[in-house]
Amino acid sequence: MKWCRIELDGGPAYGLVEVEEIAILSRAPFEGIERTGARVPLARAKLLPPVMPANFYAAGLNYAAHIDWANQHHGMSLKVPQQADIGYRSSNALIGSGADIVISKNSPGPVEFEGELVAVVGRKAKHLTEANALDCIAGYTLGNDLSERAFQRSDRTLWRAKNIDTFKPMGPFVVSGIDPMAQTIVVRINGKTVSEYSTAGMIFSIAHYIARMTEFLTLHPGDVIWMGCDGPTVPPLQTGDVIEVVNDAIGVLSNRVVREQ
Amino acid sequence: MKWCRIELDGGPAYGLVEVEEIAILSRAPFEGIERTGARVPLARAKLLPPVMPANFYAAGLNYAAHIDWANQHHGMSLKVPQQADIGYRSSNALIGSGADIVISKNSPGPVEFEGELVAVVGRKAKHLTEANALDCIAGYTLGNDLSERAFQRSDRTLWRAKNIDTFKPMGPFVVSGIDPMAQTIVVRINGKTVSEYSTAGMIFSIAHYIARMTEFLTLHPGDVIWMGCDGPTVPPLQTGDVIEVVNDAIGVLSNRVVREQ
Repeated sequence: MKWCRIELDGGPAYGLVEVEEIAILSRAPFEGIERTGARVPLARAKLLPPVMPANFYAAGLNYAAHIDWANQHHGMSLKVPQQADIGYRSSNALIGSGADIVISKNSPGPVEFEGELVAVVGRKAKHLTEANALDCIAGYTLGNDLSERAFQRSDRTLWRAKNIDTFKPMGPFVVSGIDPMAQTIVVRINGKTVSEYSTAGMIFSIAHYIARMTEFLTLHPGDVIWMGCDGPTVPPLQTGDVIEVVNDAIGVLSNRVVREQ
Repeated sequence: MKWCRIELDGGPAYGLVEVEEIAILSRAPFEGIERTGARVPLARAKLLPPVMPANFYAAGLNYAAHIDWANQHHGMSLKVPQQADIGYRSSNALIGSGADIVISKNSPGPVEFEGELVAVVGRKAKHLTEANALDCIAGYTLGNDLSERAFQRSDRTLWRAKNIDTFKPMGPFVVSGIDPMAQTIVVRINGKTVSEYSTAGMIFSIAHYIARMTEFLTLHPGDVIWMGCDGPTVPPLQTGDVIEVVNDAIGVLSNRVVREQ
């Protein structure tokens, strides 16, 4: 199944992606499929983030080669995590595929990308095991975890580095029935591939994260878990760039970079 | 105006607090007051967190005496913030007044409290100034920012220190028409006052935080901003304790501490 969330008559609506059309639903697919009968051409739809999560989780550091690269490239001293400690982002920053990434007029930069696999929670869950952890997942989408590196150095928290408006593109679609630990994630800038890795390289698997998280917290329908990225994340983004996060099953999360006026 | 959110017929409902009764509303008060006509005795209502925020902001360190105390008591080396950088909590952890705080069976402890003033956003806002910042605030409530100090030391993020289920009591009511910078916040454990401070001691005012935040992000209706606490936050909580965060205008946020079975 492949689904999305679009703007329809001024409000958000969920829909099933059926070839070149979207079949509108009366509620989120993970609450039960209920078609309204309306159909919209996919090419004309304005995509929204596929969910607006109550809780927005991010693994952050979860691939060894990315940690090595960040330490060398940014002069950081990040350590390989010894346990699966989840981090957070904030939903104000979410935009859908096709919307513009707006770099603040006060941003010194650089702004870098991290193309990630995202797990979308479909049902309330606590105390899962690694064996049944993925049962609570409705499907997978893509995320672009943008970072403003000057703010990351100057601020006491990650708020301006990670969570300013438009800095968390997510989408385009949510797909089920794929193996999340065997996906290739490609990042392209202006059509040129600048990063490519397999989710098989995760330090802690999605199932491990979920089992550990749900020992202490309840996952809720619509929550998202961003799984981190591997490898280098350069070159920095420039005004006018089109950045795409690509996965064969999920599709292309595409956003243009503009500068705040 | 004083309002709350309660459980009604198995779902959440907003209501106006009118002496000893709650007048049920058809939507959030900040979306416009619309009474359903139903009334519920306040004494029989099950209070929920007054809002479920899309974005859950927390100032963290925002009072000098608390920073001094934390450095001495916990051997930390926290610095007085030089700029108003906002942090985050996660809404899975929210509970209303009267609900139990559940300490994980795997928590080494200690678990400490921080009684805080909370600003509740009532309308979408960006690019506010300090002069008009508070115009976007629907009212104020209380929060108890519990911390598991062993997890705070051992984990790479604050997820188990701050955000496990039940660790963010919020309520009981939201009140408007008060001066948020001149409130006395009292914390009582089993009826005994263990902490008392004035919000006048904030390092950065609520208006300053909002002006700075909205330079980079959009505030949304229902978002909350927890403003931090002053002074010491001991003794650590024990199973069976009843902890109350008290403000004359807002009321008493009361929660009992239990241990996970």
